[in-house]
Amino acid sequence: MAIVLGPNQYGKAENRLVTVTRDGAVHTIRDLTVSTSLRGDLADTHLTGDNAKVLATDTQKNTVYAFAKQAPVGEIEDFALRLGRHFVSTQEAITGARVLIDEHAWERIEGNDHSFVQGTNEKRTTAVTIDGERAWVVSGVRDVVVLKSTGSEFHGFPRDEYTTLQETDDRILATSVTARWRYQTPGGAGDRTTDGIDWAESFTGIRRLLLATFAAKHSLSLQQTLYAMGEAVLEARPEVAEVRLSMPNKHHFAVDLSPFGLTNDNEVFYAADRPYGLIEGAVLRDDAEDAGSAWYTLPSF
Amino acid sequence: MAIVLGPNQYGKAENRLVTVTRDGAVHTIRDLTVSTSLRGDLADTHLTGDNAKVLATDTQKNTVYAFAKQAPVGEIEDFALRLGRHFVSTQEAITGARVLIDEHAWERIEGNDHSFVQGTNEKRTTAVTIDGERAWVVSGVRDVVVLKSTGSEFHGFPRDEYTTLQETDDRILATSVTARWRYQTPGGAGDRTTDGIDWAESFTGIRRLLLATFAAKHSLSLQQTLYAMGEAVLEARPEVAEVRLSMPNKHHFAVDLSPFGLTNDNEVFYAADRPYGLIEGAVLRDDAEDAGSAWYTLPSF
Amino acid sequence: MAIVLGPNQYGKAENRLVTVTRDGAVHTIRDLTVSTSLRGDLADTHLTGDNAKVLATDTQKNTVYAFAKQAPVGEIEDFALRLGRHFVSTQEAITGARVLIDEHAWERIEGNDHSFVQGTNEKRTTAVTIDGERAWVVSGVRDVVVLKSTGSEFHGFPRDEYTTLQETDDRILATSVTARWRYQTPGGAGDRTTDGIDWAESFTGIRRLLLATFAAKHSLSLQQTLYAMGEAVLEARPEVAEVRLSMPNKHHFAVDLSPFGLTNDNEVFYAADRPYGLIEGAVLRDDAEDAGSAWYTLPSF
Amino acid sequence: MAIVLGPNQYGKAENRLVTVTRDGAVHTIRDLTVSTSLRGDLADTHLTGDNAKVLATDTQKNTVYAFAKQAPVGEIEDFALRLGRHFVSTQEAITGARVLIDEHAWERIEGNDHSFVQGTNEKRTTAVTIDGERAWVVSGVRDVVVLKSTGSEFHGFPRDEYTTLQETDDRILATSVTARWRYQTPGGAGDRTTDGIDWAESFTGIRRLLLATFAAKHSLSLQQTLYAMGEAVLEARPEVAEVRLSMPNKHHFAVDLSPFGLTNDNEVFYAADRPYGLIEGAVLRDDAEDAGSAWYTLPSF
Repeated sequence: MAIVLGPNQYGKAENRLVTVTRDGAVHTIRDLTVSTSLRGDLADTHLTGDNAKVLATDTQKNTVYAFAKQAPVGEIEDFALRLGRHFVSTQEAITGARVLIDEHAWERIEGNDHSFVQGTNEKRTTAVTIDGERAWVVSGVRDVVVLKSTGSEFHGFPRDEYTTLQETDDRILATSVTARWRYQTPGGAGDRTTDGIDWAESFTGIRRLLLATFAAKHSLSLQQTLYAMGEAVLEARPEVAEVRLSMPNKHHFAVDLSPFGLTNDNEVFYAADRPYGLIEGAVLRDDAEDAGSAWYTLPSF
Repeated sequence: MAIVLGPNQYGKAENRLVTVTRDGAVHTIRDLTVSTSLRGDLADTHLTGDNAKVLATDTQKNTVYAFAKQAPVGEIEDFALRLGRHFVSTQEAITGARVLIDEHAWERIEGNDHSFVQGTNEKRTTAVTIDGERAWVVSGVRDVVVLKSTGSEFHGFPRDEYTTLQETDDRILATSVTARWRYQTPGGAGDRTTDGIDWAESFTGIRRLLLATFAAKHSLSLQQTLYAMGEAVLEARPEVAEVRLSMPNKHHFAVDLSPFGLTNDNEVFYAADRPYGLIEGAVLRDDAEDAGSAWYTLPSF
Repeated sequence: MAIVLGPNQYGKAENRLVTVTRDGAVHTIRDLTVSTSLRGDLADTHLTGDNAKVLATDTQKNTVYAFAKQAPVGEIEDFALRLGRHFVSTQEAITGARVLIDEHAWERIEGNDHSFVQGTNEKRTTAVTIDGERAWVVSGVRDVVVLKSTGSEFHGFPRDEYTTLQETDDRILATSVTARWRYQTPGGAGDRTTDGIDWAESFTGIRRLLLATFAAKHSLSLQQTLYAMGEAVLEARPEVAEVRLSMPNKHHFAVDLSPFGLTNDNEVFYAADRPYGLIEGAVLRDDAEDAGSAWYTLPSF
Repeated sequence: MAIVLGPNQYGKAENRLVTVTRDGAVHTIRDLTVSTSLRGDLADTHLTGDNAKVLATDTQKNTVYAFAKQAPVGEIEDFALRLGRHFVSTQEAITGARVLIDEHAWERIEGNDHSFVQGTNEKRTTAVTIDGERAWVVSGVRDVVVLKSTGSEFHGFPRDEYTTLQETDDRILATSVTARWRYQTPGGAGDRTTDGIDWAESFTGIRRLLLATFAAKHSLSLQQTLYAMGEAVLEARPEVAEVRLSMPNKHHFAVDLSPFGLTNDNEVFYAADRPYGLIEGAVLRDDAEDAGSAWYTLPSF
């Protein structure tokens, strides 16, 4: 028996990057949180502390900021691909990279060219994996908090000796959606999309589909809603191979007002923090190409 | 020398209340976090554990939920006044109450009557104080994150032996605004506004003024911006006696790219977490009535 | 009517300072979060943006770090007094200062001279106020999470139409203690303690009294426990004029296991997040000197 | 092409469970956060909303609390195994379960039989996976914040055009350790340990090894420290097949005091929040049995 080094990666996490671009008096800002991780021939530093192959995490940070100046940042997928490919192509020992980017949204303050307000807590995300010549792009959105005040039922579930939950044909359904969708390998050997993907248009379209499906789908279970959301994306967006969704069931309990001689016809709710249901699932094409390293270290159900 | 009980209060904090009202198929939701505190003749419970005058915090919680059913919640100021006055008028030992409410905003998902998305992280707030027959209302907003990409300078400050900061005539100015404004005593003996205040209209107008002034005011210091924001509210809104603002200076540092042979003409910034500047101040009318208990336990500079 | 500037202050918040001192191979570390705020003749910067009297918050930060080198940091009260007095004595326009320090505790890793583990989440705190020649010191502790599994009752409370809570003669009592105690003005004109206070010994003694009293006092209400804790400090520590405590009642509800044919004799509990009771109160000497500015912007019930 | 359901799971997350056991007047408390997830034949609820196979998450919650009464909780590994096996053995459609438990530590308040203080922020963790008859146990610890004030170097790293970091032979090394170790399949078909594992003794021993190795190992890189920590566990603990560690490099920067005419011989540091280095790696036996489902949805590098 010997003890050996297993999979490993290292990098600089949560580089906070804000850029300003100017078109005359009209400014545009971008607000990103960028994390980079590198993989490769890194046994030496683990075993002996020889760092000859360890591009410093400080250097990774510098690269993020320098790259933001050397060319327009563009969409987060493009920026992540550019960063990841740079590390893999310039460092002989580095054979893989993972770049995570969250984009924080800002809106213009009405009537002003250079003032902004943070309009939402939602983040647009991407997780780009580079493995040698291959690249995978998994984009997404998180902290999309949604609620339906009706159109949600839950019944027909099995009753064992620990079951006390009443069946209901009308409840509040609320969740904070984290969605990730895997694109069909752009830039890789098995690339199905020859023309590249319009990341911004794709994001906007997918986010709209997720919201619209959550709203429109009459729900018999949060699982059904989750599947319908993934399905809607796959039906409409050929560039997507797979969608993974994590949806906590943020329970809203109708308060028992009967001690006070009051009815409560789903009017007054207590919004609980914990515990919460947690529904996680993947929806994919049956002919989707293999996910390869797309999901490593990301949630994989 | 004797040891005595000083000021004290007790209550139930952060009751999470969601209500649904229905106009046919069209639903409206309200999402509030309500905290109540009571004051009065409470020496017994402190000194001997006799709770005969202690309306249980559990009862306070029940009251919040029952009141949400017994009549429309209305604006948060109305709901807070109603709750606070109830406790003071029905409990002989209770002479004062403080009710804090945060309202969390939701937007409709397009094209749907009963589905919503949390559009912003901002909270509308109120802090209502009842002291016997008197009432004070201090409303506000928090977590309004704003940024100007230009129109902000900082220079002319004193230089002592510990000063290294360079003067600048162009910097990013970013802050997360917490504003509280004290209304001229509605419902109190010294009430200046005979007709009552349209709380919703007042809130919307004040929030708009705060944002517009932040955007339009050319800034020589964050203090100047803060004062201008308070002044704009007081000039336009006669119902407001005083505005208090707490504005962290969320530093954005232009990254030094010169080691990489690159210029950085205020294009690429590092957004720092800590430390941060913290600018706090009050702006008021010189003939404002005395604040009384309006601010107790709230920040008072 | 005119609009005027009210009370205000500004400074640098949450400077993270870690120091290492060496006694041969044996190292000692200190880990502080320091916030400074200045007050004084600051109308100009608010009204016109003239910063001639505004010692930059960046300079305040530099001062914190330089002072940590120029002399031993010592106890946090000493360091805060030294910083506050420096600003007031060297800046003509600055007449007052508030310095807040949190100290984060570390323990040695057994058998090693220079390695440490963060043993607790508790913070030792101080809030020093300088107003001209006067100084006030309010020290404390926060995030002291304590629990009694018995020895706590709650009954005899009034029952109104919204009361459903059952009386109990045995419950879990849990809280996260925030305590602040005001010292009898060291360094001020009215100083009662001629020899100065041993801050470290005082802190250790007071923390021990708070814990021991929480543990030993049979509780009929959390208010009674709170008062007893403050009283114990005042009886034993002549250097303290007043104690203020904020104690959330972290509810632990005995789970109803009867649907499963099980009893629950206070054995199995659900620990709730929100809402929580919130008990706040002050205990003081009846001949305590006036608190002056000691508590401004700190919680004051 | 068809759209299909991929991997999925659902459950109740973060059930807060506190238990009290009594040995005469001496009480013992346990404080756990328990999350359960189930897997199996769950296509119906996703595709049609038929919940006949969906044991409600509310039932899962009830089971956690009832089980805590029906038999002593025991070590978290035992409790997780018991819960997971219950769900899989009693629900025909459920073929797999994942139970995550965090244990929060409490210490006795000196001299008292039933009063406790939360002594540390560290959590003992377990992640138990049941897949049919098989079981995997991955236990660990998180939020172990450690710091070395010397005995850490970093040099010899490659310098590309974006490298500005200076080499150092003495720096502060600080990290918040998350460690997970995979036990050699207890209870599974391939069980190597016939007698079962003493979970508590194993945890205590492994935690001590992790701390002692962090302290004693002279560090040329955080990767070297990470590997040494994993290696020390594997050398000493035959019951462990693999260790995975995630160690953020919490940067402490020596403050440049030269503008103030001061030296800084690693005495005064600024502790930064973000960005931070992030070092992740696995150390394992070369003859470790296959990990199977042990790590699914847990970080896997």
